[in-house]
Amino acid sequence: MTDTATDDNTENFRGEDAQESIYSPFLHREKVVLDTSLFVNPDVRASLGRSPTEALETFLFMAAQIHILEFYMPPTIFQELLNFVDKEKISGDLLLLLRQKPPKKHELKCPAFLLYELIEEIRDRVNRGLRVAESAVRSTEKKGIDEIIQDMRKKYREALREGIIDSKEDVDLLLLAMELEALLVTADQGLIKWAEKFGIRWLIPEKFAEYLASAVKRSRELVR
Amino acid sequence: MTDTATDDNTENFRGEDAQESIYSPFLHREKVVLDTSLFVNPDVRASLGRSPTEALETFLFMAAQIHILEFYMPPTIFQELLNFVDKEKISGDLLLLLRQKPPKKHELKCPAFLLYELIEEIRDRVNRGLRVAESAVRSTEKKGIDEIIQDMRKKYREALREGIIDSKEDVDLLLLAMELEALLVTADQGLIKWAEKFGIRWLIPEKFAEYLASAVKRSRELVR
Repeated sequence: MTDTATDDNTENFRGEDAQESIYSPFLHREKVVLDTSLFVNPDVRASLGRSPTEALETFLFMAAQIHILEFYMPPTIFQELLNFVDKEKISGDLLLLLRQKPPKKHELKCPAFLLYELIEEIRDRVNRGLRVAESAVRSTEKKGIDEIIQDMRKKYREALREGIIDSKEDVDLLLLAMELEALLVTADQGLIKWAEKFGIRWLIPEKFAEYLASAVKRSRELVR
Repeated sequence: MTDTATDDNTENFRGEDAQESIYSPFLHREKVVLDTSLFVNPDVRASLGRSPTEALETFLFMAAQIHILEFYMPPTIFQELLNFVDKEKISGDLLLLLRQKPPKKHELKCPAFLLYELIEEIRDRVNRGLRVAESAVRSTEKKGIDEIIQDMRKKYREALREGIIDSKEDVDLLLLAMELEALLVTADQGLIKWAEKFGIRWLIPEKFAEYLASAVKRSRELVR
Protein backbone atom coordinates (compact mmCIF):
# COMPACT_ATOMS: atom_id res chain seq x y z
CA MET A 1 0.00 0.00 0.00
CA THR A 2 2.65 2.45 1.06
CA ASP A 3 4.85 1.74 -1.96
CA THR A 4 2.27 3.26 -4.25
CA ALA A 5 2.70 6.67 -2.67
CA THR A 6 5.47 7.71 -5.00
CA ASP A 7 5.85 10.90 -6.97
CA ASP A 8 4.61 9.15 -10.11
CA ASN A 9 1.40 8.16 -8.47
CA THR A 10 0.69 11.51 -6.94
CA GLU A 11 0.46 12.81 -10.51
CA ASN A 12 -2.56 10.57 -11.09
CA PHE A 13 -4.97 12.54 -9.02
CA ARG A 14 -4.05 15.86 -10.51
CA GLY A 15 -6.01 14.95 -13.63
CA GLU A 16 -9.15 16.91 -14.46
CA ASP A 17 -11.52 13.99 -14.00
CA ALA A 18 -10.63 13.53 -10.37
CA GLN A 19 -10.78 17.26 -9.71
CA GLU A 20 -14.25 17.49 -11.19
CA SER A 21 -15.54 14.57 -9.20
CA ILE A 22 -14.25 16.03 -5.98
CA TYR A 23 -16.20 19.20 -6.61
CA SER A 24 -19.32 17.58 -8.02
CA PRO A 25 -22.29 19.19 -6.32
CA PHE A 26 -24.51 16.21 -7.04
CA LEU A 27 -22.64 13.66 -5.00
CA HIS A 28 -23.56 13.20 -1.35
CA ARG A 29 -20.30 12.97 0.52
CA GLU A 30 -20.06 11.57 3.99
CA LYS A 31 -17.87 13.62 6.32
CA VAL A 32 -14.94 12.10 8.17
CA VAL A 33 -12.96 13.80 10.96
CA LEU A 34 -9.37 12.58 11.36
CA ASP A 35 -7.05 12.64 14.35
CA THR A 36 -3.25 12.93 14.22
CA SER A 37 -2.97 9.64 16.09
CA LEU A 38 -3.89 7.77 12.88
CA PHE A 39 -0.61 8.86 11.34
CA VAL A 40 1.53 8.93 14.47
CA ASN A 41 0.53 5.94 16.62
CA PRO A 42 2.82 3.14 15.29
CA ASP A 43 0.31 0.30 15.81
CA VAL A 44 -2.43 2.06 13.91
CA ARG A 45 -0.20 3.66 11.31
CA ALA A 46 1.38 0.34 10.26
CA SER A 47 -1.08 -0.32 7.41
CA LEU A 48 -0.48 3.16 5.95
CA GLY A 49 3.26 3.58 6.19
CA ARG A 50 6.52 3.14 8.08
CA SER A 51 6.73 6.79 9.15
CA PRO A 52 4.14 9.52 9.83
CA THR A 53 5.17 11.21 6.56
CA GLU A 54 4.76 8.00 4.57
CA ALA A 55 1.40 7.28 6.24
CA LEU A 56 0.16 10.75 5.35
CA GLU A 57 1.38 10.39 1.76
CA THR A 58 -0.49 7.10 1.43
CA PHE A 59 -3.60 8.70 2.86
CA LEU A 60 -3.37 11.61 0.40
CA PHE A 61 -2.83 9.26 -2.52
CA MET A 62 -5.98 7.35 -1.63
CA ALA A 63 -8.03 10.39 -0.58
CA ALA A 64 -7.44 11.91 -4.03
CA GLN A 65 -9.28 8.97 -5.57
CA ILE A 66 -12.18 9.07 -3.13
CA HIS A 67 -15.16 11.11 -4.26
CA ILE A 68 -17.67 9.87 -1.73
CA LEU A 69 -16.00 11.19 1.42
CA GLU A 70 -14.92 14.59 2.70
CA PHE A 71 -12.01 14.64 5.13
CA TYR A 72 -11.77 17.21 7.93
CA MET A 73 -9.31 18.04 10.69
CA PRO A 74 -9.50 20.79 13.34
CA PRO A 75 -6.65 23.32 12.86
CA THR A 76 -5.26 22.54 16.32
CA ILE A 77 -4.91 18.88 15.37
CA PHE A 78 -3.49 19.84 11.96
CA GLN A 79 -0.77 21.84 13.73
CA GLU A 80 0.05 18.77 15.82
CA LEU A 81 0.27 16.66 12.69
CA LEU A 82 2.72 19.05 11.05
CA ASN A 83 5.10 18.51 13.98
CA PHE A 84 5.35 14.83 13.11
CA VAL A 85 5.79 14.93 9.34
CA ASP A 86 8.45 16.11 6.94
CA LYS A 87 6.72 19.24 5.61
CA GLU A 88 8.87 19.31 2.47
CA LYS A 89 7.49 15.95 1.38
CA ILE A 90 3.84 16.86 1.86
CA SER A 91 2.19 18.31 -1.24
CA GLY A 92 -0.29 21.17 -1.38
CA ASP A 93 -2.97 18.54 -1.89
CA LEU A 94 -2.95 18.13 1.85
CA LEU A 95 -4.65 21.49 2.20
CA LEU A 96 -7.20 20.65 -0.49
CA LEU A 97 -8.01 17.10 0.57
CA LEU A 98 -7.83 17.45 4.32
CA ARG A 99 -10.12 20.35 5.10
CA GLN A 100 -9.17 22.33 8.19
CA LYS A 101 -12.18 23.47 10.18
CA PRO A 102 -12.55 24.47 13.82
CA PRO A 103 -15.84 23.58 15.53
CA LYS A 104 -18.40 26.35 16.14
CA LYS A 105 -17.66 26.16 19.82
CA HIS A 106 -19.79 29.15 20.81
CA GLU A 107 -22.85 27.87 18.99
CA LEU A 108 -22.70 24.19 19.83
CA LYS A 109 -24.41 22.83 22.90
CA CYS A 110 -23.65 19.58 24.63
CA PRO A 111 -25.94 17.49 26.84
CA ALA A 112 -25.52 18.68 30.42
CA PHE A 113 -25.34 15.18 31.87
CA LEU A 114 -21.96 14.78 30.19
CA LEU A 115 -20.60 17.28 32.71
CA TYR A 116 -21.37 14.74 35.43
CA GLU A 117 -19.54 12.01 33.58
CA LEU A 118 -16.52 14.20 32.95
CA ILE A 119 -16.33 15.28 36.56
CA GLU A 120 -16.79 11.78 37.94
CA GLU A 121 -14.03 10.56 35.66
CA ILE A 122 -11.72 13.34 36.78
CA ARG A 123 -12.40 12.65 40.48
CA ASP A 124 -11.45 9.06 39.96
CA ARG A 125 -8.25 10.06 38.16
CA VAL A 126 -7.30 12.58 40.83
CA ASN A 127 -7.56 9.85 43.47
CA ARG A 128 -5.40 7.56 41.37
CA GLY A 129 -2.81 10.35 41.06
CA LEU A 130 -2.65 10.65 44.84
CA ARG A 131 -2.06 6.89 45.18
CA VAL A 132 0.86 7.20 42.72
CA ALA A 133 2.35 10.07 44.74
CA GLU A 134 1.96 8.19 48.01
CA SER A 135 3.69 5.11 46.75
CA ALA A 136 6.52 7.30 45.39
CA VAL A 137 7.08 8.87 48.81
CA ARG A 138 7.09 5.44 50.45
CA SER A 139 9.62 4.09 47.97
CA THR A 140 12.22 6.71 48.97
CA GLU A 141 13.48 4.23 51.55
CA LYS A 142 14.67 1.98 48.73
CA LYS A 143 15.60 4.12 45.70
CA GLY A 144 17.28 7.43 44.84
CA ILE A 145 15.15 10.60 44.75
CA ASP A 146 15.79 11.49 41.09
CA GLU A 147 15.00 8.02 39.88
CA ILE A 148 11.77 7.99 41.89
CA ILE A 149 10.64 11.36 40.56
CA GLN A 150 11.32 10.32 36.97
CA ASP A 151 9.28 7.17 37.48
CA MET A 152 6.52 8.98 39.38
CA ARG A 153 6.04 11.60 36.65
CA LYS A 154 5.44 8.87 34.11
CA LYS A 155 3.01 6.95 36.31
CA TYR A 156 1.22 10.11 37.41
CA ARG A 157 0.63 11.27 33.84
CA GLU A 158 -0.59 7.82 32.89
CA ALA A 159 -2.97 7.73 35.87
CA LEU A 160 -4.39 11.18 35.18
CA ARG A 161 -4.36 11.47 31.44
CA GLU A 162 -4.64 8.18 29.61
CA GLY A 163 -8.09 7.24 28.37
CA ILE A 164 -9.58 10.63 29.27
CA ILE A 165 -10.27 13.74 27.21
CA ASP A 166 -7.72 16.14 28.60
CA SER A 167 -6.86 18.75 25.97
CA LYS A 168 -8.58 21.39 23.88
CA GLU A 169 -7.48 19.39 20.83
CA ASP A 170 -9.56 16.45 22.08
CA VAL A 171 -12.59 18.70 22.54
CA ASP A 172 -12.03 20.16 19.06
CA LEU A 173 -12.21 16.69 17.51
CA LEU A 174 -15.37 15.71 19.39
CA LEU A 175 -17.20 18.96 18.71
CA LEU A 176 -16.22 19.09 15.06
CA ALA A 177 -17.45 15.51 14.56
CA MET A 178 -20.66 16.42 16.40
CA GLU A 179 -21.18 19.59 14.33
CA LEU A 180 -20.57 17.89 10.98
CA GLU A 181 -22.36 14.68 11.99
CA ALA A 182 -19.16 13.09 10.80
CA LEU A 183 -17.41 9.80 11.39
CA LEU A 184 -14.53 10.24 13.86
CA VAL A 185 -11.36 8.27 13.15
CA THR A 186 -8.84 8.28 15.99
CA ALA A 187 -6.50 5.85 17.73
CA ASP A 188 -7.14 7.55 21.09
CA GLN A 189 -9.22 5.33 23.39
CA GLY A 190 -10.27 8.28 25.54
CA LEU A 191 -11.74 9.99 22.48
CA ILE A 192 -13.51 6.82 21.38
CA LYS A 193 -15.08 6.50 24.82
CA TRP A 194 -16.33 10.08 24.58
CA ALA A 195 -17.52 9.65 21.00
CA GLU A 196 -19.77 6.92 22.44
CA LYS A 197 -21.16 9.33 25.04
CA PHE A 198 -21.77 12.05 22.42
CA GLY A 199 -23.39 9.62 19.98
CA ILE A 200 -20.65 10.25 17.42
CA ARG A 201 -19.87 7.50 14.90
CA TRP A 202 -16.34 6.13 15.17
CA LEU A 203 -14.18 3.62 13.31
CA ILE A 204 -11.85 0.91 14.60
CA PRO A 205 -8.61 2.81 13.86
CA GLU A 206 -6.69 -0.26 12.68
CA LYS A 207 -9.27 -0.60 9.88
CA PHE A 208 -8.74 2.92 8.52
CA ALA A 209 -6.61 1.80 5.53
CA GLU A 210 -9.20 -0.83 4.60
CA TYR A 211 -11.95 1.75 4.93
CA LEU A 212 -10.08 4.06 2.55
CA ALA A 213 -9.46 1.22 0.09
CA SER A 214 -13.17 0.42 -0.03
CA ALA A 215 -13.98 4.10 -0.53
CA VAL A 216 -11.51 4.22 -3.47
CA LYS A 217 -13.16 1.14 -5.01
CA ARG A 218 -16.67 2.50 -4.56
CA SER A 219 -15.64 5.88 -5.99
CA ARG A 220 -14.29 4.17 -9.13
CA GLU A 221 -17.57 2.31 -9.59
CA LEU A 222 -19.47 5.58 -9.40
CA VAL A 223 -17.27 7.32 -11.96
CA ARG A 224 -17.70 4.52 -14.50
CA MET B 1 -30.67 37.32 64.54
CA THR B 2 -29.98 33.77 65.68
CA ASP B 3 -31.63 34.31 69.08
CA THR B 4 -35.00 34.70 67.42
CA ALA B 5 -34.94 31.14 66.19
CA THR B 6 -36.52 29.73 69.34
CA ASP B 7 -39.44 27.37 69.66
CA ASP B 8 -41.77 30.27 70.47
CA ASN B 9 -40.90 32.02 67.28
CA THR B 10 -41.16 29.00 65.06
CA GLU B 11 -44.85 28.89 66.02
CA ASN B 12 -45.34 32.29 64.35
CA PHE B 13 -45.04 31.04 60.84
CA ARG B 14 -47.39 28.15 61.33
CA GLY B 15 -50.34 30.55 61.31
CA GLU B 16 -52.78 30.39 58.43
CA ASP B 17 -51.89 33.79 56.98
CA ALA B 18 -48.31 32.81 56.27
CA GLN B 19 -49.32 29.46 54.79
CA GLU B 20 -51.75 31.14 52.42
CA SER B 21 -49.21 33.67 51.27
CA ILE B 22 -46.70 30.99 50.53
CA TYR B 23 -49.14 29.26 48.25
CA SER B 24 -50.63 32.37 46.68
CA PRO B 25 -50.79 31.77 42.95
CA PHE B 26 -50.82 35.47 42.15
CA LEU B 27 -47.44 36.38 43.51
CA HIS B 28 -44.41 36.19 41.25
CA ARG B 29 -41.71 34.53 43.29
CA GLU B 30 -38.09 34.70 42.38
CA LYS B 31 -36.30 31.37 42.68
CA VAL B 32 -33.21 30.91 44.83
CA VAL B 33 -30.95 27.85 44.85
CA LEU B 34 -29.04 27.27 48.09
CA ASP B 35 -25.82 25.40 48.78
CA THR B 36 -24.95 23.60 52.03
CA SER B 37 -21.88 25.79 52.38
CA LEU B 38 -24.11 28.68 53.49
CA PHE B 39 -24.93 26.79 56.67
CA VAL B 40 -21.66 24.95 57.12
CA ASN B 41 -18.84 27.34 56.21
CA PRO B 42 -18.13 29.17 59.53
CA ASP B 43 -17.23 32.53 57.95
CA VAL B 44 -20.39 32.71 55.90
CA ARG B 45 -22.65 31.12 58.49
CA ALA B 46 -21.71 33.60 61.25
CA SER B 47 -24.57 35.99 60.52
CA LEU B 48 -27.13 33.16 60.68
CA GLY B 49 -26.01 31.13 63.70
CA ARG B 50 -23.25 29.63 65.79
CA SER B 51 -23.79 26.08 64.49
CA PRO B 52 -25.12 24.65 61.22
CA THR B 53 -28.34 23.66 63.03
CA GLU B 54 -28.81 27.17 64.43
CA ALA B 55 -28.06 28.73 61.03
CA LEU B 56 -30.64 26.50 59.37
CA GLU B 57 -33.23 27.31 62.07
CA THR B 58 -32.69 31.02 61.52
CA PHE B 59 -33.03 30.56 57.79
CA LEU B 60 -36.29 28.63 58.22
CA PHE B 61 -37.65 31.23 60.61
CA MET B 62 -37.01 33.96 58.07
CA ALA B 63 -38.00 31.92 55.01
CA ALA B 64 -41.42 31.30 56.58
CA GLN B 65 -42.05 35.03 56.48
CA ILE B 66 -40.85 35.50 52.92
CA HIS B 67 -43.53 35.30 50.26
CA ILE B 68 -41.59 36.75 47.40
CA LEU B 69 -38.94 34.03 47.09
CA GLU B 70 -38.95 30.28 46.50
CA PHE B 71 -36.03 28.33 47.93
CA TYR B 72 -34.62 25.25 46.22
CA MET B 73 -31.89 22.73 46.91
CA PRO B 74 -30.82 19.70 44.84
CA PRO B 75 -31.47 16.46 46.79
CA THR B 76 -27.75 15.57 46.72
CA ILE B 77 -26.95 18.86 48.46
CA PHE B 78 -29.86 18.38 50.85
CA GLN B 79 -28.39 15.01 51.89
CA GLU B 80 -25.07 16.72 52.54
CA LEU B 81 -26.80 19.33 54.66
CA LEU B 82 -28.50 16.69 56.81
CA ASN B 83 -25.07 15.32 57.74
CA PHE B 84 -24.19 18.62 59.36
CA VAL B 85 -27.33 19.41 61.33
CA ASP B 86 -29.12 17.92 64.33
CA LYS B 87 -32.05 16.34 62.53
CA GLU B 88 -34.18 16.23 65.71
CA LYS B 89 -34.10 20.01 65.95
CA ILE B 90 -35.13 20.65 62.34
CA SER B 91 -38.89 20.97 61.84
CA GLY B 92 -40.94 19.58 58.99
CA ASP B 93 -41.03 23.13 57.65
CA LEU B 94 -37.64 22.44 56.14
CA LEU B 95 -39.27 20.15 53.61
CA LEU B 96 -41.95 22.69 52.83
CA LEU B 97 -39.80 25.81 52.65
CA LEU B 98 -36.68 24.39 51.09
CA ARG B 99 -37.89 22.63 47.97
CA GLN B 100 -35.81 19.67 46.90
CA LYS B 101 -35.44 19.40 43.14
CA PRO B 102 -32.86 17.66 40.98
CA PRO B 103 -31.97 19.34 37.68
CA LYS B 104 -33.37 17.86 34.46
CA LYS B 105 -29.89 16.68 33.56
CA HIS B 106 -30.93 14.72 30.48
CA GLU B 107 -32.85 17.63 28.96
CA LEU B 108 -30.53 20.51 29.76
CA LYS B 109 -27.81 21.55 27.35
CA CYS B 110 -24.73 23.54 28.17
CA PRO B 111 -22.60 25.69 25.87
CA ALA B 112 -19.91 23.48 24.38
CA PHE B 113 -17.14 26.02 24.88
CA LEU B 114 -17.43 25.42 28.62
CA LEU B 115 -15.92 21.99 28.02
CA TYR B 116 -12.75 23.74 26.91
CA GLU B 117 -12.66 25.84 30.04
CA LEU B 118 -13.26 22.87 32.29
CA ILE B 119 -10.56 20.85 30.61
CA GLU B 120 -8.02 23.67 30.64
CA GLU B 121 -8.68 24.19 34.34
CA ILE B 122 -8.23 20.50 35.06
CA ARG B 123 -4.97 20.34 33.12
CA ASP B 124 -3.63 23.20 35.17
CA ARG B 125 -4.67 21.47 38.39
CA VAL B 126 -3.17 18.16 37.39
CA ASN B 127 0.17 19.88 36.83
CA ARG B 128 -0.05 21.53 40.22
CA GLY B 129 -0.76 18.13 41.81
CA LEU B 130 2.40 16.74 40.25
CA ARG B 131 4.46 19.63 41.69
CA VAL B 132 3.05 18.83 45.13
CA ALA B 133 3.98 15.17 44.76
CA GLU B 134 7.49 16.02 43.59
CA SER B 135 8.20 18.31 46.48
CA ALA B 136 6.91 15.61 48.86
CA VAL B 137 9.34 13.05 47.45
CA ARG B 138 12.19 15.54 47.77
CA SER B 139 11.35 16.32 51.39
CA THR B 140 11.85 12.68 52.44
CA GLU B 141 15.46 13.53 53.17
CA LYS B 142 14.32 15.77 56.02
CA LYS B 143 11.08 14.39 57.48
CA GLY B 144 9.42 11.08 58.35
CA ILE B 145 7.41 9.28 55.67
CA ASP B 146 4.07 9.26 57.50
CA GLU B 147 4.26 12.94 58.31
CA ILE B 148 5.09 13.77 54.69
CA ILE B 149 2.21 11.71 53.33
CA GLN B 150 -0.27 13.32 55.71
CA ASP B 151 0.93 16.76 54.63
CA MET B 152 1.04 15.85 50.94
CA ARG B 153 -2.55 14.53 50.93
CA LYS B 154 -3.78 17.86 52.26
CA LYS B 155 -1.77 19.94 49.78
CA TYR B 156 -2.65 17.67 46.87
CA ARG B 157 -6.38 17.91 47.55
CA GLU B 158 -6.09 21.68 47.86
CA ALA B 159 -4.18 21.91 44.58
CA LEU B 160 -6.63 19.74 42.67
CA ARG B 161 -9.97 20.50 44.20
CA GLU B 162 -10.23 23.96 45.67
CA GLY B 163 -11.87 26.59 43.49
CA ILE B 164 -12.91 24.06 40.84
CA ILE B 165 -16.17 22.25 40.24
CA ASP B 166 -15.25 18.73 41.15
CA SER B 167 -18.35 16.83 42.27
CA LYS B 168 -21.75 15.86 40.94
CA GLU B 169 -23.23 17.96 43.75
CA ASP B 170 -21.52 21.04 42.25
CA VAL B 171 -22.95 20.24 38.83
CA ASP B 172 -26.40 19.72 40.39
CA LEU B 173 -26.32 23.22 41.86
CA LEU B 174 -25.22 24.87 38.62
CA LEU B 175 -27.70 23.03 36.42
CA LEU B 176 -30.62 23.53 38.80
CA ALA B 177 -29.90 27.26 38.96
CA MET B 178 -29.64 27.33 35.15
CA GLU B 179 -32.89 25.38 34.70
CA LEU B 180 -34.90 27.52 37.14
CA GLU B 181 -33.20 30.77 36.08
CA ALA B 182 -32.61 31.11 39.78
CA LEU B 183 -30.20 33.06 41.97
CA LEU B 184 -27.43 30.78 43.24
CA VAL B 185 -26.27 31.32 46.82
CA THR B 186 -23.10 29.47 47.77
CA ALA B 187 -19.92 30.10 49.72
CA ASP B 188 -17.93 27.98 47.25
CA GLN B 189 -15.63 30.13 45.09
CA GLY B 190 -15.33 27.42 42.45
CA LEU B 191 -19.10 27.42 42.01
CA ILE B 192 -19.24 31.21 41.86
CA LYS B 193 -16.60 31.19 39.13
CA TRP B 194 -18.67 28.70 37.14
CA ALA B 195 -21.92 30.56 37.77
CA GLU B 196 -20.21 33.47 35.99
CA LYS B 197 -19.38 31.24 33.02
CA PHE B 198 -22.95 29.88 32.85
CA GLY B 199 -24.51 33.34 33.18
CA ILE B 200 -26.17 32.35 36.46
CA ARG B 201 -26.95 35.10 38.97
CA TRP B 202 -25.11 34.70 42.30
CA LEU B 203 -25.03 36.48 45.64
CA ILE B 204 -22.10 37.48 47.84
CA PRO B 205 -22.57 34.69 50.41
CA GLU B 206 -21.75 36.86 53.43
CA LYS B 207 -24.75 39.01 52.52
CA PHE B 208 -27.23 36.13 52.57
CA ALA B 209 -28.71 37.01 56.00
CA GLU B 210 -29.17 40.65 54.92
CA TYR B 211 -30.77 39.50 51.69
CA LEU B 212 -33.24 37.37 53.66
CA ALA B 213 -33.99 40.23 56.08
CA SER B 214 -34.84 42.52 53.15
CA ALA B 215 -37.06 39.83 51.65
CA VAL B 216 -38.91 39.50 54.99
CA LYS B 217 -39.42 43.26 55.11
CA ARG B 218 -40.63 43.44 51.51
CA SER B 219 -42.98 40.48 52.09
CA ARG B 220 -44.57 42.26 55.08
CA GLU B 221 -45.14 45.37 52.99
CA LEU B 222 -46.91 43.29 50.34
CA VAL B 223 -49.19 41.56 52.86
CA ARG B 224 -50.30 44.85 54.37
